[in-house]
Amino acid sequence: MLVYFFGSGSADGTREMKGVLGGKGANLAEMTNLGVPVPPGFTIACSACLDFLRGGGTSAALKAEIETNLARLEVTSGRTLGDPKNPLLVSVRSGAPVSMPGMMETILNLGLNDRTVIGLAQQSGNARFAYDSYRRFLQMYGDVVLGVPIQDFEHLLKSKRLTTDAATDADLSEDSLRNLVEEYKALVRTRTGAEFPMEPREQLQGAIEAVWGSWKLKKAVDYRRQNSISESLGTAVNVVSMVFGNLGDTSGTGVAFTRDPSTGEKRFYGEFLVNAQGEDVVAGIRTPLPIDQMETRLPKAYAELLKTQDRLEQHFRDMQDIEFTVERGKLYLLQTRTGKRTAAAAIRIADEMVAEGLITQREAVMRVDPEQLDQLLHPVIDPSARAQAIATGLPASPGAASGQAVFDPDVAEQRAAEGIRVILVRDETTPEDFHGIVASRAVLTSRGGMTSHAAVVARGMGKCAIVGCKEMEVDLEHRSFHVNGITVNEGDWITLDGATGRVFSGDLPTIPSDVVRVLSGQRRGSDSRVYVTYARLLSWADEVRTLQVRANADTPHDARVARHFGAEGIGLCRTEHMFFEGDRITGMREMIVARDEGGRRRALAKLLPMQRGDFEGIFEAMDGCPVTIRLLDPPLHEFLPHGGEDTKRLARTLGISRDELNRIVESLRETNPMLGLRGCRLGIVYPEITEMQARAIFEAAVRARRRGIDVQPESMVPLVSTVKELAHQRAILEHVADQVMGAMGEEMPYSIGTMIELPRAALTADEIATAADFFSFGTNDLTQTTFGLSRDDAGRFLPMYVEAGIFPEDPFRVLDTVGVGKLVKYAVTEGRKVRPNMKTGICGEHGGEPRSIHFCQTAGLNYVSCSPYRVPIARLAAAQAALSLTD
Amino acid sequence: MLVYFFGSGSADGTREMKGVLGGKGANLAEMTNLGVPVPPGFTIACSACLDFLRGGGTSAALKAEIETNLARLEVTSGRTLGDPKNPLLVSVRSGAPVSMPGMMETILNLGLNDRTVIGLAQQSGNARFAYDSYRRFLQMYGDVVLGVPIQDFEHLLKSKRLTTDAATDADLSEDSLRNLVEEYKALVRTRTGAEFPMEPREQLQGAIEAVWGSWKLKKAVDYRRQNSISESLGTAVNVVSMVFGNLGDTSGTGVAFTRDPSTGEKRFYGEFLVNAQGEDVVAGIRTPLPIDQMETRLPKAYAELLKTQDRLEQHFRDMQDIEFTVERGKLYLLQTRTGKRTAAAAIRIADEMVAEGLITQREAVMRVDPEQLDQLLHPVIDPSARAQAIATGLPASPGAASGQAVFDPDVAEQRAAEGIRVILVRDETTPEDFHGIVASRAVLTSRGGMTSHAAVVARGMGKCAIVGCKEMEVDLEHRSFHVNGITVNEGDWITLDGATGRVFSGDLPTIPSDVVRVLSGQRRGSDSRVYVTYARLLSWADEVRTLQVRANADTPHDARVARHFGAEGIGLCRTEHMFFEGDRITGMREMIVARDEGGRRRALAKLLPMQRGDFEGIFEAMDGCPVTIRLLDPPLHEFLPHGGEDTKRLARTLGISRDELNRIVESLRETNPMLGLRGCRLGIVYPEITEMQARAIFEAAVRARRRGIDVQPESMVPLVSTVKELAHQRAILEHVADQVMGAMGEEMPYSIGTMIELPRAALTADEIATAADFFSFGTNDLTQTTFGLSRDDAGRFLPMYVEAGIFPEDPFRVLDTVGVGKLVKYAVTEGRKVRPNMKTGICGEHGGEPRSIHFCQTAGLNYVSCSPYRVPIARLAAAQAALSLTD
Repeated sequence: MLVYFFGSGSADGTREMKGVLGGKGANLAEMTNLGVPVPPGFTIACSACLDFLRGGGTSAALKAEIETNLARLEVTSGRTLGDPKNPLLVSVRSGAPVSMPGMMETILNLGLNDRTVIGLAQQSGNARFAYDSYRRFLQMYGDVVLGVPIQDFEHLLKSKRLTTDAATDADLSEDSLRNLVEEYKALVRTRTGAEFPMEPREQLQGAIEAVWGSWKLKKAVDYRRQNSISESLGTAVNVVSMVFGNLGDTSGTGVAFTRDPSTGEKRFYGEFLVNAQGEDVVAGIRTPLPIDQMETRLPKAYAELLKTQDRLEQHFRDMQDIEFTVERGKLYLLQTRTGKRTAAAAIRIADEMVAEGLITQREAVMRVDPEQLDQLLHPVIDPSARAQAIATGLPASPGAASGQAVFDPDVAEQRAAEGIRVILVRDETTPEDFHGIVASRAVLTSRGGMTSHAAVVARGMGKCAIVGCKEMEVDLEHRSFHVNGITVNEGDWITLDGATGRVFSGDLPTIPSDVVRVLSGQRRGSDSRVYVTYARLLSWADEVRTLQVRANADTPHDARVARHFGAEGIGLCRTEHMFFEGDRITGMREMIVARDEGGRRRALAKLLPMQRGDFEGIFEAMDGCPVTIRLLDPPLHEFLPHGGEDTKRLARTLGISRDELNRIVESLRETNPMLGLRGCRLGIVYPEITEMQARAIFEAAVRARRRGIDVQPESMVPLVSTVKELAHQRAILEHVADQVMGAMGEEMPYSIGTMIELPRAALTADEIATAADFFSFGTNDLTQTTFGLSRDDAGRFLPMYVEAGIFPEDPFRVLDTVGVGKLVKYAVTEGRKVRPNMKTGICGEHGGEPRSIHFCQTAGLNYVSCSPYRVPIARLAAAQAALSLTD
Repeated sequence: MLVYFFGSGSADGTREMKGVLGGKGANLAEMTNLGVPVPPGFTIACSACLDFLRGGGTSAALKAEIETNLARLEVTSGRTLGDPKNPLLVSVRSGAPVSMPGMMETILNLGLNDRTVIGLAQQSGNARFAYDSYRRFLQMYGDVVLGVPIQDFEHLLKSKRLTTDAATDADLSEDSLRNLVEEYKALVRTRTGAEFPMEPREQLQGAIEAVWGSWKLKKAVDYRRQNSISESLGTAVNVVSMVFGNLGDTSGTGVAFTRDPSTGEKRFYGEFLVNAQGEDVVAGIRTPLPIDQMETRLPKAYAELLKTQDRLEQHFRDMQDIEFTVERGKLYLLQTRTGKRTAAAAIRIADEMVAEGLITQREAVMRVDPEQLDQLLHPVIDPSARAQAIATGLPASPGAASGQAVFDPDVAEQRAAEGIRVILVRDETTPEDFHGIVASRAVLTSRGGMTSHAAVVARGMGKCAIVGCKEMEVDLEHRSFHVNGITVNEGDWITLDGATGRVFSGDLPTIPSDVVRVLSGQRRGSDSRVYVTYARLLSWADEVRTLQVRANADTPHDARVARHFGAEGIGLCRTEHMFFEGDRITGMREMIVARDEGGRRRALAKLLPMQRGDFEGIFEAMDGCPVTIRLLDPPLHEFLPHGGEDTKRLARTLGISRDELNRIVESLRETNPMLGLRGCRLGIVYPEITEMQARAIFEAAVRARRRGIDVQPESMVPLVSTVKELAHQRAILEHVADQVMGAMGEEMPYSIGTMIELPRAALTADEIATAADFFSFGTNDLTQTTFGLSRDDAGRFLPMYVEAGIFPEDPFRVLDTVGVGKLVKYAVTEGRKVRPNMKTGICGEHGGEPRSIHFCQTAGLNYVSCSPYRVPIARLAAAQAALSLTD
């Protein structure tokens, strides 16, 4: 069965059949069954679309089913397709299992031709209406099915207005419209070389196939990619008998929400137009009226609408977005669906529906999209500022920010020191730019993907970033960038919307987030309705959640922020990040260029107090929670200057010649630094580095403990490929721990574990578990090595891969459960065979991504760790994962 | 039981106990049991050494066992340790389960002191002998146990010769020796602050511990690393009662082989000295006599020796290397072991022992070390040229070559064109140097490891290479290199020994390999005994072998060479290598910098005929055998010029500005090229590349087939991480195959498969198998990604890792069966679940490495593929793997 009928109070389908009938079709069936007034019609199942797209055309069996249901529709409506006296007119609309608003095609008034238009005129008693309907149909069908450019139709329409002195389309006379109909048909003839199809069954077939084909329209494909919707769903086609809102002042049409989609307030909210068709509301030619004014204009229909909307919300148990038409006083519902809403609305609606007893707390937790919570945490551009984007890049880190464009981290720092807001613009950023990022309000790059350096660093800091903005050409020499004919010079103001990836020129106003103001103590929680609701929702989430949520934080400040957001520990403290700040890099550089162990030890001795101080601050911020500190990880050359003034200065500081410094830098260069001398390899080649870091960790722990802080240090060895590496580093850590605790006379528990971030570590997890108290899956690197894919370089082909469906997702964004996930599960299983209570977690970027968190739940991990600003998202996603697995 | 006695015709041990007693101890026991005259003694088991090295000292139980066996030894020998009248003297020697000649310590004449030396003088009737023995003991023990520099003893000895006018040590008088003994004791006193230990039991304990400690001597550790001997074996200690070859003209000592270790000829071969101790033979102070002259000098002992050596060879069923001493006419065997031999000797001995009925053909196959076969294939430095190496690097590709040092591939090419032999010297090579490598006799680099570009390319071409010669400082500017105080300028002659990694200055003569001369048709096979024997051994190997052996070959010439060496197909034809030759790179470069698909297609059209021609040549060379052609794999920027004149020339050729060219080159640069846009990613982003290559493959195949050649093309898609990539490329290949075969009216079978070289490919082998006719494991890349370890960068820490035992081996040389091997086995198993008859092979560098081949056998692969010059090695190793698994 491929075709499902609905009408006269009963339907073949139900709301459960979204996968078959699409969202719209399933809900039309449901509404029909409920007794809600819905024009009769039928839905062609999604699978027919897929058959068609595979080149299967329309099968004879399907044609027969359509014919049968058309006959039922004719009986139910009392009209006949193509009947010149009493013509049945239908709309043909798409309707996928997942909402894709506006992405696919719709055709109205199908069934009209030179003969039926006369019948419509007679039946409606309004010839002008009939010819207007006919010309709309010709235009829509001509565009969508026959491929005649819509502009050509618009051009003829405008000419007609001009030659007849009509102010609007509504002022066109019946004669003008009759005339236009002939012009439209001539246009179609010229453009396609054939007559417009007059046979309604041929029209219907063409419209159905056009809707199927629209599944593959670029905008639809893009939308699905953006929203992670599967390509293999296909769309259903809804063929529904037409009702008209444009039959005079007792007719009308509108769109409404059962609650306010912007604030979530429980009030019937919407707009309507008298004497209009649905497209008129959308087109924005006439200004619609607020829905409550309908009470005076169409009182009977409004009363029924009010009752119906309430019934629909109660039935569907969620806020509904409905479309309706009133034809000569009679209300028809054309669509109902779960309404899209802002984050603030989402949490308020969920919260209030719990209070109303409509849904349970658990359902409330499931109702809010975790990703959406981001909106509550990052400042947003004031929606009242209507501006035109000059370019669009990848929305790497949400939030909104304005500032002067600067093209150099040093300039960024200078200007920021002068109190000027700046936005760092680069082709791409490197760790050397770190201080510039710190100093900037936001980052904009022309290269790099969602996990590029700029993206990761900015997200980690909760800072807005737009990356991979390819249209933009950065001219470092002239300190400017060019985009779409516009030049932005250093010092010019720009504004970024990190949530959408849009770049604006000028200083657009932003609104700070309510929730953040409360969390950062700038406002009392009880003063903010959004905060209260947010906090309640997350408390419900925390009740059902079984995964712990930790944060990746590298400084005491980040740790405090993370704790505000509800982090239950630090899952990843990247010790190298501490060295990018201010003078510290000098000490680090001294260590790297040291000629021997003695030189290295002297430099390390300078770094020790800085690191110890940071650790102590982090332990303090995380009092009572575990803190996982990763030993030095990145390739050392990342810390070196890359020429020019920087090199000159460093050489002077270090008291060596520039040539010598250059030689050292050169000797540290690697062909594939990601696979080079980094991670535990550093600590094995230079054990004194590990010694210093161990000393900093344990001395900080003892000091904090003496101050009454509950310290739970977890030392983590990175990039292990064999248990011997871990054992080597563990021995140093234990030795230093004994020394420090002995010398300071303070015993305390601590644990030592490892990152599992190389396939070999996962494959030999049973061996590695013998030396590890915990495993932390570094899924960024694990994804890189499992796929043989560099995050830094993937930007050149990864988007094309995702577009072509070769990868279902960017594997750096959403964990690849099939490949990388197999290694994670294997390592957890094998590791726990050896150490049954082994603590396992994830600290890659995936730790803050809801679908990846769901995987972590299934894999039996103990915790996820993510950037501080994603902690609330992870808490909610973890709760949803726990619920979806217990249901 | 830790101590095993032997003496008086019976022993506690047997030859089977090598793991416990070491090779020497087991064979001393075996000889004793056989009735061969062996001085009595006892062996302390290897495990005692390991206990000691773990810090366990010498246990009371072990001390008791030693005491018991010392008592048995005193009874058997009729002498007593420390008895001033009838002293027992013993030698204390190491003896590991695997032969490590000269690597560990030995102490002779132990038991001598100021009192027993008098007893020895009386018993031997030769006071001079006694004091000579005593001063030798003092010197040996002082050096080995007490750590007094040997040079100090030598210094005193030389002074004594000078002051007494003695020409040699043998000319020193008894008085001089007595005097020297006192001087030696004083030296020990000064250097160590203590008296030389006079108590024989204390001497014995010290000597045993010194032998144990010598397991960790640097030279011993290095030797084990070089020869892949496990650190965890430990050494046994043999305590044997002394016999003296220096008791006058009826005494003597010697070393002999049961067959000629150089040629393998069946003749008793060795050297001896009358009136001498073993060390005199080794020291080379006196010139030993050929063994057959012993017949006249020591006729009775010689007769017994002849009989004994034959008996030992028959018993041990292999060529023996024996040490003996004649004490006053009586023969004693001090050691027997399997003799080391050249490759030529190894195959001849195995062959003749089969003919003699001593061993079976299968045993003969097991007898020859596959790695050794290399010697038969590469030219060697004429051993008669005695030269001193100026530096030593990694022996990356065997063979010997002389030539003028050149520092630039263009100069190499120029001089080679003038008929001058050259050796390319670089810090490291890149694909740009390819023409220079082609033009050179050998390659020498200061950087890079055994799998660096230079190493891989040279091995692939059967060309000598020494890489990673760190002592060498290359000064490109002055076109010279400096090493150990020597400067070699451009044009100076150097000679490389690729088998040992030694670099010589000057033009040392080399000997071409017999086998290669036959295989290349320069000589008739029947004229060469080595060739005949080699061919017979390999034919026996081929009979038992189940793994197919293919070659990695990129040109028709390489394919022909591979076939000569017995390759049964091409397992890997790297199509990109074809583009490095001559003009071809211009076409390739045109393609890379093309602005659009059209430009790329025009450039590809120029490359098509070259590639098609090469493929046809390879199909012809491999008539009747499969040829696996891998689609383009490396990052494109490898093909681009890296600045200077080269860029200028290319810009001119391409008709674009240098700036534009530089911009393009810059835009192609990747942070981690190994994980970037390469492999099938290229063919997916630019499908026209795959189209061209498919066309070249199938057109070449059809053309060859029309000429009556049996063509078996296998197209291989590289760097697949998901089945969709493979399916994408497969569709193009199949489409072009249909087109070509249709147009040319020729049908033929072909297959399409993939490299498994990324962990994700192995992990999803079941999915990938649905689109692959075969799997070829690219274990170079699979090792890189599984370990997260770049071959190009690992040189900075990999040697240290192997030295410290963190990696048991360089995983790029010997396949890591634990991690990488797990992925290989998993992929084979999962792949065959889907496609039971799936052909599987290996085409990484490991395909020519015997232990890795053994793994391939256990993993159930169908074939291994290696560089042409390693095909014979792989054939033999595969046979041994098959035999060892069926036994």
